[in-house]
Amino acid sequence: MPAPLFEAVPNFSEGRDEAKISRITDAVRATLGVRVLGLHSDPDHNRSVFTFAGEEDAVLSGAVALAKACAAELNLVSQTGEHPRMGVLDVLPFVPLEGATMEGAVRLARRAAEILGSLGFPVFLYGAAATAAHRRDLPDVRRAGYEGVAERLKDPGWRPDHGPHTLDPRRGAVAVGARPFLVAFNAFLDTDDAEVARTIARRVRESGGLPAVKALGFLVGGRAQVSMNLTDLERTPIPVALEAVRSAAAELGTSVESTELVGLAPLAAILDTTRYYLGLRELTADHVLETRLHGPPDS
Amino acid sequence: MPAPLFEAVPNFSEGRDEAKISRITDAVRATLGVRVLGLHSDPDHNRSVFTFAGEEDAVLSGAVALAKACAAELNLVSQTGEHPRMGVLDVLPFVPLEGATMEGAVRLARRAAEILGSLGFPVFLYGAAATAAHRRDLPDVRRAGYEGVAERLKDPGWRPDHGPHTLDPRRGAVAVGARPFLVAFNAFLDTDDAEVARTIARRVRESGGLPAVKALGFLVGGRAQVSMNLTDLERTPIPVALEAVRSAAAELGTSVESTELVGLAPLAAILDTTRYYLGLRELTADHVLETRLHGPPDS
Repeated sequence: MPAPLFEAVPNFSEGRDEAKISRITDAVRATLGVRVLGLHSDPDHNRSVFTFAGEEDAVLSGAVALAKACAAELNLVSQTGEHPRMGVLDVLPFVPLEGATMEGAVRLARRAAEILGSLGFPVFLYGAAATAAHRRDLPDVRRAGYEGVAERLKDPGWRPDHGPHTLDPRRGAVAVGARPFLVAFNAFLDTDDAEVARTIARRVRESGGLPAVKALGFLVGGRAQVSMNLTDLERTPIPVALEAVRSAAAELGTSVESTELVGLAPLAAILDTTRYYLGLRELTADHVLETRLHGPPDS
Repeated sequence: MPAPLFEAVPNFSEGRDEAKISRITDAVRATLGVRVLGLHSDPDHNRSVFTFAGEEDAVLSGAVALAKACAAELNLVSQTGEHPRMGVLDVLPFVPLEGATMEGAVRLARRAAEILGSLGFPVFLYGAAATAAHRRDLPDVRRAGYEGVAERLKDPGWRPDHGPHTLDPRRGAVAVGARPFLVAFNAFLDTDDAEVARTIARRVRESGGLPAVKALGFLVGGRAQVSMNLTDLERTPIPVALEAVRSAAAELGTSVESTELVGLAPLAAILDTTRYYLGLRELTADHVLETRLHGPPDS
């Protein structure tokens, strides 16, 4: 039985200076037992999303090394960008992967929060690791960014879980949490009217009644885009989300021209999608040649 | 760069006696470097299909060990079954997998054919390993089974490529070949009329004009079934074959109730299917979490 694997997806407040981004991510790459899965730096938002995985202790070490590097390299006072940030290391979610449970990810998040607190970061636990119901949702935790956090510190319900109860304006605060694996999936419409995308996004979220779907409408490359985060694929799998968008689009006289997957999807989500559309009675990883060639011999 | 992998899919003429089947397959399991992917024994056809994979030399050793075990354990004279068999080891195809080419599989098939010939098996090379155009198609090579082969031996165009030019009635002859990976995919119809399945199979093969698709109609478990072998997924991917069946079924007033994948499918075929139905701009193994977690670090 291999050890459980976890993923960390830190968001840090630097998306322009490649040298700084390299030094920050190299701190993780130098950590034994960590595998880097992706780095997405956005100059407009001046923000990077970094993804790495490994066993619990390796991911914890990588996250701590990254936090130290963020504190050494970045300064929130001189940082500008569209995204409402609250800290140099802004958000640090942990995700259970193979063999891991959400309880394990919560434990890892709380271990990380304690260490980051001792390093001088005010830490708010969120998601499954939250210590109070009103602190579960990330948008509530970081509402109005650094200024919002500074304002709320007077409220006993918004004291940090770890670290100082005052904000260093150069470093800010960090939200550390545990959440399920998230699939980012976008549908491009056959129209340049962003309002149509926003209407579809609203319907999919609300009257469409799909649970565990966050949807927004944008104009991307001259084309209306419904941008979705699927936060629990067991409750709403990819094909169910897409068919809801297709049907809302048809009602509004347009259609889905193409789609894109941003980042990674678990094999199980790909298999579910294939099973759904082919009408397969059964499809598991055991039916996949590569799994049988490279997986455990008894799989 | 890992060594190229090959698959062997021997069909041998025993599908009932479990002790014999075990002894024959154990000869392969005992071969170093071979991974068993599947065993399907059919008592009606009195025939087993065994699948294993590995690097070239390991697969060659496994195939030779299996041929020797078939010769030791089985006797075609006392063997009965519906399938028109021509030998105890009836068919031995080699398939290029990861990193391997069809040229590599042809070389492997010819190495195996030479060794089997020296062990006393009359060997006909077929598929991409065939030595003459009229010997490429397996149905032509084994037409009318053992009796057909015995009859054709007088014809200089049907001399074995290796081994004796006479048949030992206990052992028979073997077809050794190289072919692409084959996906077995069945569609169950919402009818119990096998004739409808046969009509659809004919249309998909012929007027439907799908290349690299073998299709037959059956009645399975009280339900009409279109049984397909997709022999080249680049020419006809799974969704294209299924949509042809769905559209032919609709024309005949029925529909596809469910489908099944028999055996294994390559990850690429699953990804192609997901991309097709979601309308994804791009989807490669690099988008799959497990590939990134367990594959080569630079993938």
